[in-house]
Amino acid sequence: MIDYANAKLPEEKVFKDPVHRYVHVRDQVIWVLIGTKEFQRLRRIRQLGTTYLVFHGAEHSRFNHSLGVYEVVRRIIDDVFHGRPDWNDDERLLVLCAALLHDLGHGPFSHAFETVFKTDHEYFTRQILLGDTEVNAVLRRVAVDFPEKVAQVIEKTYENQIVVSLISSQIDADRMDYLQRDAYYTGVSYGHFDMERILRVMRPRKGKVVIKASGMHAVEDYIMSRYQMYLQVYFHPVSRSAEVLLNNILKRTKYLYEEGYQFIVEPVHFKTFFDNNISVEDYIELDEYLLVTYFKLWMKEKDPILKDLSSRFVNRKLIQYIDLNPEEEPERFHELKALLQEAGVDTDYYLYHDCTSDLPYDLYEPDVESNRLPIFLEMPNGDIRELSQESFIVDAIAGRMKKDHKVYYPKEILTDSNVNFSVREQLEKLLNVK
Amino acid sequence: MIDYANAKLPEEKVFKDPVHRYVHVRDQVIWVLIGTKEFQRLRRIRQLGTTYLVFHGAEHSRFNHSLGVYEVVRRIIDDVFHGRPDWNDDERLLVLCAALLHDLGHGPFSHAFETVFKTDHEYFTRQILLGDTEVNAVLRRVAVDFPEKVAQVIEKTYENQIVVSLISSQIDADRMDYLQRDAYYTGVSYGHFDMERILRVMRPRKGKVVIKASGMHAVEDYIMSRYQMYLQVYFHPVSRSAEVLLNNILKRTKYLYEEGYQFIVEPVHFKTFFDNNISVEDYIELDEYLLVTYFKLWMKEKDPILKDLSSRFVNRKLIQYIDLNPEEEPERFHELKALLQEAGVDTDYYLYHDCTSDLPYDLYEPDVESNRLPIFLEMPNGDIRELSQESFIVDAIAGRMKKDHKVYYPKEILTDSNVNFSVREQLEKLLNVK
Amino acid sequence: MIDYANAKLPEEKVFKDPVHRYVHVRDQVIWVLIGTKEFQRLRRIRQLGTTYLVFHGAEHSRFNHSLGVYEVVRRIIDDVFHGRPDWNDDERLLVLCAALLHDLGHGPFSHAFETVFKTDHEYFTRQILLGDTEVNAVLRRVAVDFPEKVAQVIEKTYENQIVVSLISSQIDADRMDYLQRDAYYTGVSYGHFDMERILRVMRPRKGKVVIKASGMHAVEDYIMSRYQMYLQVYFHPVSRSAEVLLNNILKRTKYLYEEGYQFIVEPVHFKTFFDNNISVEDYIELDEYLLVTYFKLWMKEKDPILKDLSSRFVNRKLIQYIDLNPEEEPERFHELKALLQEAGVDTDYYLYHDCTSDLPYDLYEPDVESNRLPIFLEMPNGDIRELSQESFIVDAIAGRMKKDHKVYYPKEILTDSNVNFSVREQLEKLLNVK
Amino acid sequence: MIDYANAKLPEEKVFKDPVHRYVHVRDQVIWVLIGTKEFQRLRRIRQLGTTYLVFHGAEHSRFNHSLGVYEVVRRIIDDVFHGRPDWNDDERLLVLCAALLHDLGHGPFSHAFETVFKTDHEYFTRQILLGDTEVNAVLRRVAVDFPEKVAQVIEKTYENQIVVSLISSQIDADRMDYLQRDAYYTGVSYGHFDMERILRVMRPRKGKVVIKASGMHAVEDYIMSRYQMYLQVYFHPVSRSAEVLLNNILKRTKYLYEEGYQFIVEPVHFKTFFDNNISVEDYIELDEYLLVTYFKLWMKEKDPILKDLSSRFVNRKLIQYIDLNPEEEPERFHELKALLQEAGVDTDYYLYHDCTSDLPYDLYEPDVESNRLPIFLEMPNGDIRELSQESFIVDAIAGRMKKDHKVYYPKEILTDSNVNFSVREQLEKLLNVK
Repeated sequence: MIDYANAKLPEEKVFKDPVHRYVHVRDQVIWVLIGTKEFQRLRRIRQLGTTYLVFHGAEHSRFNHSLGVYEVVRRIIDDVFHGRPDWNDDERLLVLCAALLHDLGHGPFSHAFETVFKTDHEYFTRQILLGDTEVNAVLRRVAVDFPEKVAQVIEKTYENQIVVSLISSQIDADRMDYLQRDAYYTGVSYGHFDMERILRVMRPRKGKVVIKASGMHAVEDYIMSRYQMYLQVYFHPVSRSAEVLLNNILKRTKYLYEEGYQFIVEPVHFKTFFDNNISVEDYIELDEYLLVTYFKLWMKEKDPILKDLSSRFVNRKLIQYIDLNPEEEPERFHELKALLQEAGVDTDYYLYHDCTSDLPYDLYEPDVESNRLPIFLEMPNGDIRELSQESFIVDAIAGRMKKDHKVYYPKEILTDSNVNFSVREQLEKLLNVK
Repeated sequence: MIDYANAKLPEEKVFKDPVHRYVHVRDQVIWVLIGTKEFQRLRRIRQLGTTYLVFHGAEHSRFNHSLGVYEVVRRIIDDVFHGRPDWNDDERLLVLCAALLHDLGHGPFSHAFETVFKTDHEYFTRQILLGDTEVNAVLRRVAVDFPEKVAQVIEKTYENQIVVSLISSQIDADRMDYLQRDAYYTGVSYGHFDMERILRVMRPRKGKVVIKASGMHAVEDYIMSRYQMYLQVYFHPVSRSAEVLLNNILKRTKYLYEEGYQFIVEPVHFKTFFDNNISVEDYIELDEYLLVTYFKLWMKEKDPILKDLSSRFVNRKLIQYIDLNPEEEPERFHELKALLQEAGVDTDYYLYHDCTSDLPYDLYEPDVESNRLPIFLEMPNGDIRELSQESFIVDAIAGRMKKDHKVYYPKEILTDSNVNFSVREQLEKLLNVK
Repeated sequence: MIDYANAKLPEEKVFKDPVHRYVHVRDQVIWVLIGTKEFQRLRRIRQLGTTYLVFHGAEHSRFNHSLGVYEVVRRIIDDVFHGRPDWNDDERLLVLCAALLHDLGHGPFSHAFETVFKTDHEYFTRQILLGDTEVNAVLRRVAVDFPEKVAQVIEKTYENQIVVSLISSQIDADRMDYLQRDAYYTGVSYGHFDMERILRVMRPRKGKVVIKASGMHAVEDYIMSRYQMYLQVYFHPVSRSAEVLLNNILKRTKYLYEEGYQFIVEPVHFKTFFDNNISVEDYIELDEYLLVTYFKLWMKEKDPILKDLSSRFVNRKLIQYIDLNPEEEPERFHELKALLQEAGVDTDYYLYHDCTSDLPYDLYEPDVESNRLPIFLEMPNGDIRELSQESFIVDAIAGRMKKDHKVYYPKEILTDSNVNFSVREQLEKLLNVK
Repeated sequence: MIDYANAKLPEEKVFKDPVHRYVHVRDQVIWVLIGTKEFQRLRRIRQLGTTYLVFHGAEHSRFNHSLGVYEVVRRIIDDVFHGRPDWNDDERLLVLCAALLHDLGHGPFSHAFETVFKTDHEYFTRQILLGDTEVNAVLRRVAVDFPEKVAQVIEKTYENQIVVSLISSQIDADRMDYLQRDAYYTGVSYGHFDMERILRVMRPRKGKVVIKASGMHAVEDYIMSRYQMYLQVYFHPVSRSAEVLLNNILKRTKYLYEEGYQFIVEPVHFKTFFDNNISVEDYIELDEYLLVTYFKLWMKEKDPILKDLSSRFVNRKLIQYIDLNPEEEPERFHELKALLQEAGVDTDYYLYHDCTSDLPYDLYEPDVESNRLPIFLEMPNGDIRELSQESFIVDAIAGRMKKDHKVYYPKEILTDSNVNFSVREQLEKLLNVK
C-alpha cells in the first residue's frame, strides 16, 4: 500500500469552485479522503440549515464549504508560508486534512438537532476520525497517530498554535471561506473582502499567525463583512422561525416516543438518540434528506401537533414573530401566553422566545475568555499588537451586538373563526396587528 | 375573496437572487402561488439532477430557477413590451404565471425517472394545474378558465404565439435564466451573455417575438454560451455516469418488484408507478429527498445489485467510461460484454452505452420540424429574417453537434483478485488501461 | 426650435457603462448637453487627479463619472420616486441636468490648481452654466430661468431640499457613483455596497430624502466603504506626493512669472490666472492635456527647480515621505529642514508637510455645522431619525479619523555623493533610513 | 552596480490591477524598467486610441496593458512552465522583459499616425531598446547582448519559438490581456473567457507552446470572445469615424507644412516627421497629450479645414457614415462625391471610404502565410494538431469575416441652408436620410 505521507497524484486534480475558481488537489490522501463515504455525506447537509427558506440561493452543502476551507489553507501554506522561518512543511498534510475534515461531525440541521438531543458535532467529529470509518482508514495510512493529531487540531488542543489558528481563530480559513461562500450563494452584497490581500500579509511568527500591519484595513473590512453577515443573514428572523419549527418537531417526536405513542412511521433512526446510546454508524446515517423525508411522512400522523409542525416545515408555512423581550415586558408576554391558551393553542409548541445570544455567536471579542485566538497585527518594528488596539473601527464594534429578542406565534389564530372573537381582538391589540 | 385578476400587494416584495439581484413581486396571485405546497416542492428537486456530483456548486433547485424565469419574463413585459402596439397587458398575468409554473410537473431526477417509468413531466404539469391542488385553487381566483390557459401556454398550444415564445422558444426566459444560473452555481466561465442587451431589443411583432438586428451579436454570444454549456456541463460524462446508476437502480427496483422480491424497505411510493396508476397526489409526494432516502435504505437490501448500485450512487462510487460507439466498433463492444460476463458482471446493469443524442438536446436547429420557434431578427427596413440567415457564426454551428458515445463499465473489476487474471489482462488491453 | 422642456428622443439612447451597465437617455436636452464642448471637455480631466500614479487603473475621467451620477439620479426618480406623494415630476429635468453638470467647473488637477491659484470650481460651474456657452444655450431652451435653477441646485441653495439632496448630501448620487466607479477602476475591493437596495428604500418625505429603516445595514455598508476608500485610495500618501509636486510646479511657475523670468515656453494659458483676471473662455481651455504638455516642455527650461519638478512629475520620480507631525515633533522637523538646507536643497519646494485634514474631507459627521445634509432613517412608525442615533457602527466612527501627517522630501539626497557625507549620515539617522 | 541577471527585490512589490487583481514583481530589473521614462510615457498613450469616444470607459493606457501582459507571462512561467522538461528558466527574465516592453515603440493614436507618417512602431521599439535610453541602460545590466535579445523576441526572430509564442502567437499573453482588459474598461460583456483554465493547460513542447486537448473548449471560447471584441468594439464605426478625422488632421497639417502655410502654432514636434528624419529622442516626446493639445490650439488656425477638423475631434462632432462599398456601387459613390463637391465640400478631407480589412486584422487564420503561430492542441496520445482541425466551431469561423465598408461624410451639409436646396435633396435621397 502506498504511504500517503508523501504520495502525490500523477497529475493535479481540480474542482471548479464558484468562490475560489478552482480547488487544487495534489496530495493522494486529500483526493482519497474526498471520496470517502463520511465526507460525501456532507453533500446531504446544508451549510446554512434553514436559511434557504429566506434566501433561496443558499442551497449549498457543507461538502462545498469544506473543499473551500481546504483550498484557503492550501493557498496560505503553499503560496505564503512555504519556506518561511516559523513554518515547518512537515505539518502541511496535517493542517490540510484538518481543514478538509473540520465539519465532518456535523449532523442535519445542526443547531436544532444538538439542542434537542444534547449531542455535540465536535464529539462526533472525533468519533468519525478515530472510529471504524473509511476516513480513519485513509488517515492511518499517513501515520498511526495521524488521526489523533487531526482530531487535536480540530479540537484546538494541538500543540503548535499556528496550525490551530489556520483552522480556528478570529481570522481562520473556515470564516474566510464561509463568509464569501454564503454571500455568493445568498446573493447578498456583504461578505466580500479582499482575501487575496489578507493571505499575502499573513505570517507564521513564534506560535502565532500574525497579519502585517499594512493589511490592517483589509482585516477591518473582513470584520465588518462578518458583522453584516451575522445581522443580515445568519440571524435573519424568518430563518430562525424555521429553526423554531424544527426544534419543536424534534421535541414533540421525543415526547411522543417517551409517551409510547404509536407512530404510523416509526422514528427508527432517532431511537438511539432518544435512548442516548448513539454509535458512529447510527450517527452518519443521519442527514437532511432523511429528516425531511420523516417530516413529510409525519404530515400524515394522527398526533395533531406533530402533523401540523411537520406540514408547516415542509410546505414553509412558518410561524410569525414580534419584537418582544419577555424579561423586559413580562406582563405582555404572559398575557400573550394566556390569550393563546384561551384560544386553544398549545404554547409549549407554538409560543417561543428566541434571542440571538443563544445562537452560535461570533462577533470579534478579544477580551472574552474563550478558546478562539484574537487577530494579531505585526507592526513595522516587529511588535505584535491585538487588532482592536490599533483599529478604532474594530475597537468600536468589538464585543458589541444588540441582542435581538423575538417571540414566535402562529398568526393563523387571528383569522381562525373557531376562536372566540374577543380573544382574537385582544390578541390583535397586544400584537399590534390590524 | 379578493379577485386575483387585479390584486396588487400593499407593498412590493422582493427575493434576493444571486443571478438577477432581485426578483420583484407586485401581484398578489404570484405571491400566493409561490407559497403553495406544490411550488414549494420544487425546492426538493435539483435543477441539474446529478450534475452536483461533478460540479459541487450545482446544488440549486428548480424553485430557484422558476423564480428566475418569472423575473426575466416580468422584465420583458414591464420594462420592454408594456405599451407597445403588438402587446396586450391583458395577457400579463397569464405569461407571468406560466413562467413561474412551467416546471411544476418535474419529478425527482427527471430524465432517469421518466425513462424508466415512462412518465412525462408535461403531463403532470397539466394535472397539477387543473387538479385538486393549492395551485389550481389560486389560479381559479383569477378566472375560471385561467388554469387551462396557463396549461396551454406551457404546452405551447395557446393561440398567441408571443405569449408562448416568451416561455418557450429558442431564446426564451427559461433558457436565458438557466444558462446564467447554471453557470453561476457551477462556477464555469461559460454561460454569460448580455441578457440586459437582449431584453432591450426584443419586440412583439404580429404573433412573433423578434430581436432588433442591432442586437444580433448579443444573440450570437447567447447561442455560443448555450453550446458551451451543453458540451461542458450538461453533457459531462461523469454526470451521465451517475445518471446511468440512477436508471439502473430504478430499473432493478421495478424488476425486483415484478418478480415478487421481498424488500426490507418496500418501495411504497413507487407502487403506483410500477402499476402505472399514478394520481397527482402520489406524484407530488415524490422528490429527491425521498428517492435518496430510499437509496440509502436499500444499501442494506439483500439483492446484491440493488444494494451495490444504491451504495455507489449515495457514496459517489461512479462507474467508469470509455469512448466507444458500439455501432462503429460492434466487435470491440461485444468482446467487452463477453469478457465482463466471463468476469461475473451482470451486463444488464453494469454495461451501458450512452449517447448524447438521447439526452434532452437543444442546439439551435432552425430547419428541424419541431415545436420550438427559431430566433427572428427584425432588420432596419422591417423585414423579419431567421437568425442563421444573417449570422454566419450561427449558420456554421446550427444543427451541428458531434454525437458523443460512451460505454460505461465498473472499473473495479480490473483490480478484483477474484476475477481470472487472463480475463483482466484482456479487459485492460481492450480498454487501453494500463 | 424644439422646446426642450418636454422633448423626448425618437428612440432611447444608451451608453455602455462598466459600473451601471447602461446609462439610459430619453430626454433630448440631456442628449444635447452631453454633446456640448464644455461637457466633452470633462473627458480631459481625470476623476482622481494623480491617483493613477499609484493605482494604474484609475485613468477614468470626470466625463465618465458625470454620466454615472446622472444615471443614478435617473433611476431614483424614474424607478422609485415617480408617482409618490412628496415628489413632483416637474423637477425631474432640473435634477437630471444638475446631476449631469455638477462637475462642469472642475479644472485640471483641481485640488492643487485651486490651492495655488485661489480659484473655485463651484464659481466656474456657475459661470459656465450662465455664461456665453453651448451648455447655457441648451439649458435656456428648457426655460429662461432654467440655467439659474440648475446652478442653484448644484450650489445647494435651491428651495426644494429633496432636489438638492439627490445631488449633494451624505448619501447622494455623486458619492454613490464615485465610490463604486473609483473602486472599479482602481480594482480595490472596497467601495462596493448594495446601491440597488439603497435606491429601493429611498423616499421623498416633506423636504427630505429619507431611507426606510429596513435599509439601514446597506447604508452602514456604504458608510464603511466610504471610510475605506478615503483611507486606502483617496488619502494614499504616494498620490499625495504627486500632488505636492504639482503644487510646487505651479507655485514655482507663478513665482518665476512674477519675477520676470524668461521662459523658453511661456505659460500663456496661465497668465490670466497669475493676473487673477480669468474669463470663462480662458478657463475652459484648461485641461490636463494642456498642463501635462506644459510640464513636458518645461523639462527643458533653464530654471533648475521648474525643470526638475516638471521632470519628476512627468516621469514619475516622486518624492519620498515619512510619518512626521511638525507640531508634535518640531525639533525633528527643524533639524530635517536645516540638514536639507545644508545639503543645498531648496526647502520651499522640496520639503513639504501634508496632513489629510487639509484634503477634501468627507467622513460622516452629522453634528458638524456644514451644508451637507446628514442621512435620515424613516422608522416603521414614521419617525425620522438621524443615522448615527440608530446605528452604533456609524455612531462609533462618525466624525472620527486619525489625521495622518506626512513630511515629503527628496530621497535622492541620501545617495548624492556631492552632498557632505556627515550631513547624509545625520539625515539617514533622522529619517530612520538605513 | 548590482547585476540585474539575478537580483531580487528585498520584498515582492505588487500593483493592484482590476483585471488580474495583482501584478507581482519580484525581479529588480522589472521594477527598475517600470520606472524608466520611456515606459512611464506609455501612460500617455491610450490602449484603444479613439475608442473612448464610443465606449466612455475605455480611457486606459498602454502602461496599464503592458503590466498586464507581463503578469500573464509571469504566471505562465512561474506557475505552469517552471520545472517542466522543455522549459529553461534561463530565458525567464528575457520573456518577462519582452512582455513588459512589447508596446514600447507605440506612438500616439498609432494607426492614424503610422498611416500618415509611414512610421512603424516596431522599428521604434527596437530603437528605444538599443538606443541611448534609460530602458537600454537597465537592460544592459542583465547582459551586454540582452537588449538585442529582447528586441528579437518582440520582433519574433528569436530562435526559441516558445519564448516568442508567449508574447506573439494566436493565443499569447498580449491578446489574453487586451481582450479581458478592453472588455473590463469598455464594460461590454464579451471578452471574458477562462484564462486561468487556459494557462493551466499550456505546455512547452519542442519549440512550441501547445494546449492540452482537455482545454479546447476554453480556447474556443477565447476565439469567440476575440471575434466579438473585433466586431463590437475594435471595428466600431463611430470609433473609425474619429480615426478618419485624426488621419485627415495629420494629412492636412503635412500638406500645409509642405505648402509653406504660416501656422499660428507651428507643428514643431512634427517637423522631423514631415522631413522623415526622426530621432528616438524626438519620437518619445510624442504622446496623446501633446497631439490633443496641438489640435486644441489649431482650433484657432486660419486654415478652415485644419480648424474645422481639429474642432470636430476635440469636441467630438464626428462625421457620419453610411454602408457603401465604392467597388460594388461605383456610380453611387461618384454621384455622392460629385454632389458633395457641388455643395462646396472638399472631398479630399470630408469624404472617406474605410474598410475593416485595412484595420489591424486579427481573426484566426491558420492557413494564411503569416508570422503569427497558430494554436496547437496536444491530443491525449501526444499528437499535435492545429486547433481548427479539431474544433468545428473554430473551423467554421477561421479566416471568415465580412468586410465592412463604410463611407464617411459630413452630415451637417444636409441642413446647411447655404447649400443649394436641390443638391441637398439629391443627397438625402442618395443617402436614404429623411
